[in-house]
Amino acid sequence: MKALTYDDVGKWKVVEKDVPTIQDGGDAIVKLVRTTICGTDLHILKGDVPTCDKGRTLGHEGIGVITEAGSELKNFKKGDRVVIRCITCCGSCSFCKRSMADSCRKAGWILGHTHDGTQAEYVRIRYADTSLFPVPAGADERALLVFSDILPTGLEVGTLRGKVTPGCSVAVVGAGPVGLAAVLTSQLYAPRKLVVFDQDDYRLQIAKKMGATHTYNVKGNSDIRALAKEHIGEADGFDVVMEAVGIPATFDMCQELVGLGGHIANIGVHGKPVNLAIDKLWPRSVTISMALVSAHTIPTLLDLYAAGKIESNDMITHDFKFSEIEKAYDVFSRAAETKSLKVNIEF
Amino acid sequence: MKALTYDDVGKWKVVEKDVPTIQDGGDAIVKLVRTTICGTDLHILKGDVPTCDKGRTLGHEGIGVITEAGSELKNFKKGDRVVIRCITCCGSCSFCKRSMADSCRKAGWILGHTHDGTQAEYVRIRYADTSLFPVPAGADERALLVFSDILPTGLEVGTLRGKVTPGCSVAVVGAGPVGLAAVLTSQLYAPRKLVVFDQDDYRLQIAKKMGATHTYNVKGNSDIRALAKEHIGEADGFDVVMEAVGIPATFDMCQELVGLGGHIANIGVHGKPVNLAIDKLWPRSVTISMALVSAHTIPTLLDLYAAGKIESNDMITHDFKFSEIEKAYDVFSRAAETKSLKVNIEF
Amino acid sequence: MKALTYDDVGKWKVVEKDVPTIQDGGDAIVKLVRTTICGTDLHILKGDVPTCDKGRTLGHEGIGVITEAGSELKNFKKGDRVVIRCITCCGSCSFCKRSMADSCRKAGWILGHTHDGTQAEYVRIRYADTSLFPVPAGADERALLVFSDILPTGLEVGTLRGKVTPGCSVAVVGAGPVGLAAVLTSQLYAPRKLVVFDQDDYRLQIAKKMGATHTYNVKGNSDIRALAKEHIGEADGFDVVMEAVGIPATFDMCQELVGLGGHIANIGVHGKPVNLAIDKLWPRSVTISMALVSAHTIPTLLDLYAAGKIESNDMITHDFKFSEIEKAYDVFSRAAETKSLKVNIEF
Amino acid sequence: MKALTYDDVGKWKVVEKDVPTIQDGGDAIVKLVRTTICGTDLHILKGDVPTCDKGRTLGHEGIGVITEAGSELKNFKKGDRVVIRCITCCGSCSFCKRSMADSCRKAGWILGHTHDGTQAEYVRIRYADTSLFPVPAGADERALLVFSDILPTGLEVGTLRGKVTPGCSVAVVGAGPVGLAAVLTSQLYAPRKLVVFDQDDYRLQIAKKMGATHTYNVKGNSDIRALAKEHIGEADGFDVVMEAVGIPATFDMCQELVGLGGHIANIGVHGKPVNLAIDKLWPRSVTISMALVSAHTIPTLLDLYAAGKIESNDMITHDFKFSEIEKAYDVFSRAAETKSLKVNIEF
Repeated sequence: MKALTYDDVGKWKVVEKDVPTIQDGGDAIVKLVRTTICGTDLHILKGDVPTCDKGRTLGHEGIGVITEAGSELKNFKKGDRVVIRCITCCGSCSFCKRSMADSCRKAGWILGHTHDGTQAEYVRIRYADTSLFPVPAGADERALLVFSDILPTGLEVGTLRGKVTPGCSVAVVGAGPVGLAAVLTSQLYAPRKLVVFDQDDYRLQIAKKMGATHTYNVKGNSDIRALAKEHIGEADGFDVVMEAVGIPATFDMCQELVGLGGHIANIGVHGKPVNLAIDKLWPRSVTISMALVSAHTIPTLLDLYAAGKIESNDMITHDFKFSEIEKAYDVFSRAAETKSLKVNIEF
Repeated sequence: MKALTYDDVGKWKVVEKDVPTIQDGGDAIVKLVRTTICGTDLHILKGDVPTCDKGRTLGHEGIGVITEAGSELKNFKKGDRVVIRCITCCGSCSFCKRSMADSCRKAGWILGHTHDGTQAEYVRIRYADTSLFPVPAGADERALLVFSDILPTGLEVGTLRGKVTPGCSVAVVGAGPVGLAAVLTSQLYAPRKLVVFDQDDYRLQIAKKMGATHTYNVKGNSDIRALAKEHIGEADGFDVVMEAVGIPATFDMCQELVGLGGHIANIGVHGKPVNLAIDKLWPRSVTISMALVSAHTIPTLLDLYAAGKIESNDMITHDFKFSEIEKAYDVFSRAAETKSLKVNIEF
Repeated sequence: MKALTYDDVGKWKVVEKDVPTIQDGGDAIVKLVRTTICGTDLHILKGDVPTCDKGRTLGHEGIGVITEAGSELKNFKKGDRVVIRCITCCGSCSFCKRSMADSCRKAGWILGHTHDGTQAEYVRIRYADTSLFPVPAGADERALLVFSDILPTGLEVGTLRGKVTPGCSVAVVGAGPVGLAAVLTSQLYAPRKLVVFDQDDYRLQIAKKMGATHTYNVKGNSDIRALAKEHIGEADGFDVVMEAVGIPATFDMCQELVGLGGHIANIGVHGKPVNLAIDKLWPRSVTISMALVSAHTIPTLLDLYAAGKIESNDMITHDFKFSEIEKAYDVFSRAAETKSLKVNIEF
Repeated sequence: MKALTYDDVGKWKVVEKDVPTIQDGGDAIVKLVRTTICGTDLHILKGDVPTCDKGRTLGHEGIGVITEAGSELKNFKKGDRVVIRCITCCGSCSFCKRSMADSCRKAGWILGHTHDGTQAEYVRIRYADTSLFPVPAGADERALLVFSDILPTGLEVGTLRGKVTPGCSVAVVGAGPVGLAAVLTSQLYAPRKLVVFDQDDYRLQIAKKMGATHTYNVKGNSDIRALAKEHIGEADGFDVVMEAVGIPATFDMCQELVGLGGHIANIGVHGKPVNLAIDKLWPRSVTISMALVSAHTIPTLLDLYAAGKIESNDMITHDFKFSEIEKAYDVFSRAAETKSLKVNIEF
């Protein structure tokens, strides 16, 4: 079968690999129907993820069909259509029990990282009973592509850890796919304000379409508080601020925007430390959270999708055949220029 | 009457002032029975608190008797013995309703700061209905001195924001009065481990007496993880870590000690920013909190005191007459040398 | 001034009374702009509320203007337009601090009950600082009539105590004003199903307009589980069931509908005990809540109204002049026949 | 091997059965080291549990050693000493994920009920990875007998669902094993009062030893509020009331004792409906919970045991050899007379 692999720093390569086979009773072999590319895949390609070996098949998102089910599987059988969870997890260790499947003692984020991933014709899913979810009947599977990772990330790491509640004010810094997922899932909790900041008008336009009440282009404007002035009310800041970029400058913006008793939910993937203005923030009852996605909320998100409460197709901007995956990488990696968010890669 | 005031940077001065009088129907005039000194008073004396004017009577802690009750008071009358809340609050603004009285729109931390405080024979308490609490019948009032500020700080900013729960592991960095208050209140929640780090053997000894299960002297030992190795189990760190010092080095120690899914509760008063190792912590589901005390938990703490669940007398190491308050300041400001924690100053 | 009073069992009477005056510095005198009638007023008229004396001015809802502000008021002044809170509360007792203003030690539900209420040209509001809320700028005050009582009741007693969360399934038994308020506020939390049961097609139609995903007329159908069969999925019942009628038969329906691990939120005003099928429910991890409204959520609801998230005008079906209040009572008390929900009575 | 079985209504019988064998890769065969008897076993013998067939080996508690481990087991191996969880659970269904293992879609309470239990020399444990827990090193295994069921029941169904918090007041109605487990686990949360009611002075004496602050013998005294008068303070009742008997009369007592905003946590196993005084309780903001144990808290309880925070040996009053199990049943079933609580039956 064909697989897109991490060849060397800065280089991907499509290679021929053997179709994976069942190694353990808990495994499933899934034939991909569609997959997508994540910002994390680009990080790997840049050489930022030393735990990822060269030759690894990339990808941790996708929709597929089970072609072989391990003997221990109790929840799935051959022929089932599934959403692949970006986090593989045993479901029974102390972290899995705490909804921290990303720290699962036996697995975690292994797909497209320490084990071959989903940008291939077939993928072996370990602990399949807890690492796959059934596609709801009648679903538009293209729209489900964002349910593997991006949407649960927005919900778990942004909206839930940020404690968005009805009537609160929310600021999202960064309108890339994960920031947009935070916007989309914040709305499930009826905030009274949902303000989005980015440097790209196209992305801000999508944010508006997805429910942002106000958007601001911060390009060339270093004083984010001045920009947000009309929203910074009684408590001199927002109840919830989400960092969805991952660099020191945007973390600083969040420290500017957070209000008294407010919360900064960091979603961005940071490569270096940041400065924490604890001398200014400590008397303001601020909390800060940061996390990898556990993806345990996928079933709830699928329920909400089935109920018509989540409109995710707008996040998918381009469509490719798997044979064009190198072109897809090219488009996705020049996001600003190509106006790309998530790409749909069909098999 | 006599009052201890902030005279100039590095200098206090006992002066003669007029006895305060009722200015508003919600006021009470309280004759002090005993007062104490806080680390914050030393900060003011160092010139670190620019919002505190010279000539200000210091002090935000104390036990007293109401000598005059404003016409609007509904909860108190002349003659009532009271614990003074370090935070003055209106009780009805949006912050007071959120248990953030420290951010009260009409008051907050004003005693011994922007208004004359409790290191004087009399003090005017504004919004007295919500800023005083009755002394429980039969209480040892000396032991109650720590209920104005230190004990609610340990409970609210350390134990509650840190989310100490039965069976969890707790590390406290710093065994000064506030660290000890965190130790004392953490125990109300039955942690399985309560490990205290400090540079002073005397304080560690008190920590042990107050319930620490293990203590370590970190003097000359920069590798705190090595010290704590025997407690760093499955999750490679502690569930709850409390910073009770307020400098970058101790904040760093907390980042070393916190476990997967763990929490850093900052109690220390920081004068400068710190480095946040977000690049290492983001995939570990860590949360960080910081806050000023609201002191809304004083009634609960007094209930627990009355039920015999809080033994706070050990935190008071020295006794003085109010006429000796300058000596008290001298002893308290050389804490390591004098082995002082909290001092009791009687009128 | 004119006032609608409880004359005798079964009889109301419009009488002439003196305009109330300030009795305490915390009082405000409010000139009513519009008022409405509650099912509770009908209960009083039936003689069901022995704590309400004859001659009492009825009414605990309304919008008005402050004509006189007590000397202690800090949040309001003469001329302010206000939403009257159905619950009067001191804001500082232990119950007020726990968001249980209905149990306020100094007040509670007193308006139109133990003190003269809002169905008069003027009303005296005690503890006005915490018992009134400002009308948001530019609001349609007719739509705000339901913010005094009905809407916070639906939110606090139904949606919040019922713990409605994104993706859950909700059943509401009873589509009267309070049931509809539960429907309207449940939607703020994105349930995947919101199923309403009643005996009146007109009310079910309004429920649908307000966001019910499914409605059922239970008239002549005693087997409510059979009716709900298509929604009773894996857990054999609903996550949240709200009782919004107040009789044993509807409480029984709730016991039939509640799922494993589910919650029954009782909103109905019951006049007699009910049978609790604890023998069947105990192994099902069910919880049950019941409460009077505290109305502390009015500010949040007003924020959401201002943000366009609450469309409450549909709950107001009839308009009257205050001079026609007897006609308004007649229409409201024959609700099924007159298709009335809430009535707007203007001054 | 020998096994104690349910022979017929009112009759048990020790019979010879085959040693169980592995049927599924997730199974373990456990050789019992010690077992005990539960009130539920007596219910089965009375014929109250129709889902339990005649001939069934009773018992759902015990400590043992794994003699055979299924091929799929990842957490255990042959030779491991284990605490048997009274609830068998798959660990991956939607109920297991919600800490409601009692409703596990694939198992639940099956031991000594629908599958052969632990009052035999060997027992087959299904889903062993999630249905067994390792015995902590150095533990007194006799004291651990109450960790299979009684102690997690007290914690989960009483203390946690009752929301016991530091400083609250707790009343426990019934001082049998489960009531005592509620007392023992309530103390982990530092209530200011812990008042126990029973008809048996011996049990009340044990309750006192386990931490009750006050005890009352209710024999011949129908007015429980009069008895509790000294503890019924400001809110006219207790914050948390636990029903640990399971009959209408004791449920009524709980309704008498619960305070404003209070909670009734039902732990008792009820065989018939009760009267719910909703007409009196609805304006008092009361909540009621009821549940079967899930036993997911066993690891936390074992941690607390290892930390010396749980002293459970006092709950075990009698010791027998397995060959004397019929005598053990006799003693346990005449509890009042024999002053028995839990019995230790060694193999």
